[in-house]
Amino acid sequence: MLYSSAKSKPRKTIDSLGIQLTQPPSPVANYVRAVQTGNLVFLAGHGPYLPDGTYITGKLGQDLSLEEGYAAARQTAIALLSSLKQEIGDLSRVTRIVKVNGMVNATPDYTDHPNVIDGCSDLLVSVFGPEVGKHARAAVGMNSLPIGIAVEIEMIIEIKL
Amino acid sequence: MLYSSAKSKPRKTIDSLGIQLTQPPSPVANYVRAVQTGNLVFLAGHGPYLPDGTYITGKLGQDLSLEEGYAAARQTAIALLSSLKQEIGDLSRVTRIVKVNGMVNATPDYTDHPNVIDGCSDLLVSVFGPEVGKHARAAVGMNSLPIGIAVEIEMIIEIKL
Amino acid sequence: MLYSSAKSKPRKTIDSLGIQLTQPPSPVANYVRAVQTGNLVFLAGHGPYLPDGTYITGKLGQDLSLEEGYAAARQTAIALLSSLKQEIGDLSRVTRIVKVNGMVNATPDYTDHPNVIDGCSDLLVSVFGPEVGKHARAAVGMNSLPIGIAVEIEMIIEIKL
Repeated sequence: MLYSSAKSKPRKTIDSLGIQLTQPPSPVANYVRAVQTGNLVFLAGHGPYLPDGTYITGKLGQDLSLEEGYAAARQTAIALLSSLKQEIGDLSRVTRIVKVNGMVNATPDYTDHPNVIDGCSDLLVSVFGPEVGKHARAAVGMNSLPIGIAVEIEMIIEIKL
Repeated sequence: MLYSSAKSKPRKTIDSLGIQLTQPPSPVANYVRAVQTGNLVFLAGHGPYLPDGTYITGKLGQDLSLEEGYAAARQTAIALLSSLKQEIGDLSRVTRIVKVNGMVNATPDYTDHPNVIDGCSDLLVSVFGPEVGKHARAAVGMNSLPIGIAVEIEMIIEIKL
Repeated sequence: MLYSSAKSKPRKTIDSLGIQLTQPPSPVANYVRAVQTGNLVFLAGHGPYLPDGTYITGKLGQDLSLEEGYAAARQTAIALLSSLKQEIGDLSRVTRIVKVNGMVNATPDYTDHPNVIDGCSDLLVSVFGPEVGKHARAAVGMNSLPIGIAVEIEMIIEIKL
């Protein structure tokens, strides 16, 4: 295989970053965490799921500091990668992170959404490197999110078939 | 035709569910309800359009109960399927509902968005079955929506060419 | 070349509309303005960037009139086209504007989002004509946006390879 030597790279990186991929429980509702169409994978909106089974909740500009928001976005990226790994088997199949939609639970006068969502973007670039990991992105403020989670992030990924 | 026997399935299901596909009027603005690119159809954001020409309006957590929100999301799914049918001619061409983006008009402390958007997801799975109908999904809270509609939902669908 | 005579059309139109494509500075964060996958280009969320290096800020329903919101959406379309041109080299490669996601910084009771986002849609149809320029669209209200910008808009474009 041409790519055999590169195959374990992302996983190695994740391990070396000390990241443990912990997947949130499957949705109880009539939807799924990931759908593949052609060489694209669309991931559902994920939240900052913690290994103890809870989520990071709270509103930026009111309950959470920028640092806490950044940590929530990073934790959400881990949940996204966990779902992605379960869908495609091996993260080394990722050829490009195409799009990240970062939605921040925030007050009406909050303005620092990009620095919050950097918690997700920075992790993606750490794991996949800049060429594969850099993505088009939106970072916006929501007035409410499910069960009060701090951020909800969805993602489109291009993979090798 | 290989698929001739399956062709009328989704329509039959819709009829058997007692659903009448009523399409909202075409947008007056410079956009359209659906764009096909390759084997993907991108649907515009739709609202809970009623056969009498009005929309379900109101804010979750303030004006509308969960049940009313669920009904609004279901009604929006009907509008989405109406536009999809007009675009592709026959709903049996749908091979997968890829992505649903459910945006709920809600108060800042609302937390029950997923149960609202289930009104859309449940209908899609009823119509297409779990394998075709289950989709990646986001469910989030908006602080305002056009003309005060209760939900706005957009959708990406994979079809058979 | 079959398309040689049409090749300079969009640019000519932009010039004839008196539009100067001024691109915002590159993101400092770990993301990029555009990602191409297959024949689709996903553009990041852009704001109403002005040639003087500032952005149009403010909330619809509170700080800005509909006309000012429309102008902000139009200015954002110019930023989007600037990024698109930088990504694909020549705007005549655009075969279809697939999807526009128009997010308006608005008060909780604002209802006029479609007329704001028309500022973007109208420009796209002016530049590309109705067949290529008309797109699926969502227009929704956000309770806050980065640095308080009036609108944030993202876009998916189909191009000729």
